Amino acid sequence: MLFHVRMDVALPRDLDPAERDELLATEKKRALQHQRAGRWVHLWRVVGHYSNVSIFDVDSTDELHEILWNLPLFPFMTVQVTPLTEHPSALSANP
Amino acid sequence: MLFHVRMDVALPRDLDPAERDELLATEKKRALQHQRAGRWVHLWRVVGHYSNVSIFDVDSTDELHEILWNLPLFPFMTVQVTPLTEHPSALSANP
Amino acid sequence: MLFHVRMDVALPRDLDPAERDELLATEKKRALQHQRAGRWVHLWRVVGHYSNVSIFDVDSTDELHEILWNLPLFPFMTVQVTPLTEHPSALSANP
Amino acid sequence: MLFHVRMDVALPRDLDPAERDELLATEKKRALQHQRAGRWVHLWRVVGHYSNVSIFDVDSTDELHEILWNLPLFPFMTVQVTPLTEHPSALSANP
Amino acid sequence: MLFHVRMDVALPRDLDPAERDELLATEKKRALQHQRAGRWVHLWRVVGHYSNVSIFDVDSTDELHEILWNLPLFPFMTVQVTPLTEHPSALSANP
Amino acid sequence: MLFHVRMDVALPRDLDPAERDELLATEKKRALQHQRAGRWVHLWRVVGHYSNVSIFDVDSTDELHEILWNLPLFPFMTVQVTPLTEHPSALSANP
Amino acid sequence: MLFHVRMDVALPRDLDPAERDELLATEKKRALQHQRAGRWVHLWRVVGHYSNVSIFDVDSTDELHEILWNLPLFPFMTVQVTPLTEHPSALSANP
Amino acid sequence: MLFHVRMDVALPRDLDPAERDELLATEKKRALQHQRAGRWVHLWRVVGHYSNVSIFDVDSTDELHEILWNLPLFPFMTVQVTPLTEHPSALSANP
Amino acid sequence: MLFHVRMDVALPRDLDPAERDELLATEKKRALQHQRAGRWVHLWRVVGHYSNVSIFDVDSTDELHEILWNLPLFPFMTVQVTPLTEHPSALSANP
Amino acid sequence: MLFHVRMDVALPRDLDPAERDELLATEKKRALQHQRAGRWVHLWRVVGHYSNVSIFDVDSTDELHEILWNLPLFPFMTVQVTPLTEHPSALSANP
Repeated sequence: MLFHVRMDVALPRDLDPAERDELLATEKKRALQHQRAGRWVHLWRVVGHYSNVSIFDVDSTDELHEILWNLPLFPFMTVQVTPLTEHPSALSANP
Repeated sequence: MLFHVRMDVALPRDLDPAERDELLATEKKRALQHQRAGRWVHLWRVVGHYSNVSIFDVDSTDELHEILWNLPLFPFMTVQVTPLTEHPSALSANP
Repeated sequence: MLFHVRMDVALPRDLDPAERDELLATEKKRALQHQRAGRWVHLWRVVGHYSNVSIFDVDSTDELHEILWNLPLFPFMTVQVTPLTEHPSALSANP
Repeated sequence: MLFHVRMDVALPRDLDPAERDELLATEKKRALQHQRAGRWVHLWRVVGHYSNVSIFDVDSTDELHEILWNLPLFPFMTVQVTPLTEHPSALSANP
Repeated sequence: MLFHVRMDVALPRDLDPAERDELLATEKKRALQHQRAGRWVHLWRVVGHYSNVSIFDVDSTDELHEILWNLPLFPFMTVQVTPLTEHPSALSANP
Repeated sequence: MLFHVRMDVALPRDLDPAERDELLATEKKRALQHQRAGRWVHLWRVVGHYSNVSIFDVDSTDELHEILWNLPLFPFMTVQVTPLTEHPSALSANP
Repeated sequence: MLFHVRMDVALPRDLDPAERDELLATEKKRALQHQRAGRWVHLWRVVGHYSNVSIFDVDSTDELHEILWNLPLFPFMTVQVTPLTEHPSALSANP
Repeated sequence: MLFHVRMDVALPRDLDPAERDELLATEKKRALQHQRAGRWVHLWRVVGHYSNVSIFDVDSTDELHEILWNLPLFPFMTVQVTPLTEHPSALSANP
Repeated sequence: MLFHVRMDVALPRDLDPAERDELLATEKKRALQHQRAGRWVHLWRVVGHYSNVSIFDVDSTDELHEILWNLPLFPFMTVQVTPLTEHPSALSANP
Repeated sequence: MLFHVRMDVALPRDLDPAERDELLATEKKRALQHQRAGRWVHLWRVVGHYSNVSIFDVDSTDELHEILWNLPLFPFMTVQVTPLTEHPSALSANP
């Protein structure tokens, strides 16, 4: 089940540099884990923004919330979630 | 080069039914052609909306405009275009 | 899996009265079917608006889209879909 | 009498950790009390947000304001209140 | 129980003049009835707009919806409803 | 001459408690004075918000500005001012 | 007493040309009358818009509403009204 | 050449009182200079706001930017600039 | 003197095809004239929109309004005008 | 390939003056480099704003993101990116 998620990140200026580096490293590790597990199926950077557009493939809204809520950068993000479904003109629907 | 595109469709109520069927069939055929050619790499339906979220892979902004402008449903669409780039935490950037 | 949906209805003034009655009767029948089947678990009217706030309990985003897209009033609705999950302070999570 | 309420929480980063824990524990206790008393009839988490969607069943707007204003997290919330009424297509109206 | 209501009216240009006169006369009669019955306690015109700001004193959200939904001009109005309560600095709270 | 005013208050978290108490007490005293003088004719709390909806009856826009600008909480308020006039369907216009 | 008013005009395409000419001529005559009477003290065109920015000097909000409501183009306008007062740094306040 | 400018001021709470007084005095002196020089032709206070609506008469957009950018309060202002031209129904155009 | 202008075009569906062709041909001719005269210095299409972003170099706001107001497509456009000035980091300011 | 970019700058008040001067000097040097290299083809100041409107000519969205992300002022900017293409009425398309 697919969800479209946009995350806009705003790190506070006074974040301790070491804490910041740690945060970003953990966020990246987590993002790679979710991608390797097939739950975070696409991850793109938005040009000119500290933002990403992502596609998640999860079994439930609970699972999606669990993933997003536990991202290390979650407290510094604005998140928009849009549920998706197969498009009748997509290749997958017209084999 | 990737672009994120959202299209919201609003067909007028007084569209002639035959014209409408023709329009939708041509739109679908065109969407499938662009997908098979590898230019329209993802096409999803937004749940509860006559809308799609799409990812295009094109060589230039000219090519993207050419594709969108010539979609049969273009006169009935509101379109939002967002340029994308590779995310540093994406699998592709961390092989 | 729960989804919060708000539907705002705008019927065109020039809708044929018979067509309109038929539409509203079918919409009501459909709404009652989905409620009896346990998929449309809450349905409230918003005070002062031709609108409702609803909670759907479905197995997938596909199922939700199927329900919404096929509502007789769908062409005359603006729809907002918000995925929900259990709240940690809800009674259900604190038995 | 039903009211639909959405609460978006934004805790300041510099909140003292002990104060924060105390605040969240008291908020949870309060939410459970109101639910057990039948005034806070639904409480859901919005996926990807530090937010809830709630339904309150109260005797008056005074009672609703009293509840919301005295929530421990109230100073850190943005609140939207929407009055509801029975929908003519709800099961309750079509026994 | 008080509710603040703003109504913005937009009459279609092609409304039949007789129907329009009838509509406006009935609306006025209804507004006066509700005022005399003590349910519609204030009614002001917004300067430069075909709009009013009103205060309703009703026993329930059901009653308020009933009043608004049945106004002859309701199909041509955009309505905003805001629940009110006594202000701690109001004279009524400080006799 | 009537004006509709909505005031949304946002007190900074780091306001000195004594200064805050003083501020709120002075604000309340001032509000009561203006009400007793017949200039601030209605004052309601908006449910779920640190906000009020008020009606002022003043001789000029200068007088209204003077009142608002000198409220002790003015530096912490967002204010919206809407001029009103008698509604042709109000009781006062239809004796 | 000064009020700042912005009017945005949107004439329907199907307005009868003669009716339109009549409307515009009457509107212009009325605007000149109000200017000559000293009530409509400034009238500017907004560059690139079918809009004006105006300053009115009136004795009451009733008088302002009377003027605006009776403009021949009123049914085709969106109007924004902002009350003004003397600025403490204006020349008039610093003779 | 006329420009309509709205300036909304937001002074930070922690501004040093002496610096603040100095800032406001300089701002006022500057505003009076520009008014006496005929460049700042109107300056009004918006009722209930720390804001002004102004009309500037300048020779170029460069001159306007120079004036605004060098106002002592500029770093604390949100500014909106709207180019104006003579209105065909203004007295000046209908001598 | 430079102005940044964005024009969004919305042609009505029921425009007579011959009138439409005539309109578009005249608009194009006019745009080319203004460009050759050095007044319309840049003209770009916005990707995925029936819109352009333009830069005008004119002697006054009157001249700019004259150009825009007389474009054949003006009645079908939404226009946004933003005055520009030389940027201190532009090449022209740093020869 | 052209992109339209608007950058709105908001420097924090507590930025160390030396750091600020360094930042602005580096930003300017960088802007000049990109302009001399032909990638940043236009750079204008928006009148009355700490903002610019720019046109970039780049080979890819990756290159554009690289440029923007590495601007010294990037952490203090809000950026809007709009892809452009040749307009059919531009001189370049009508030699």
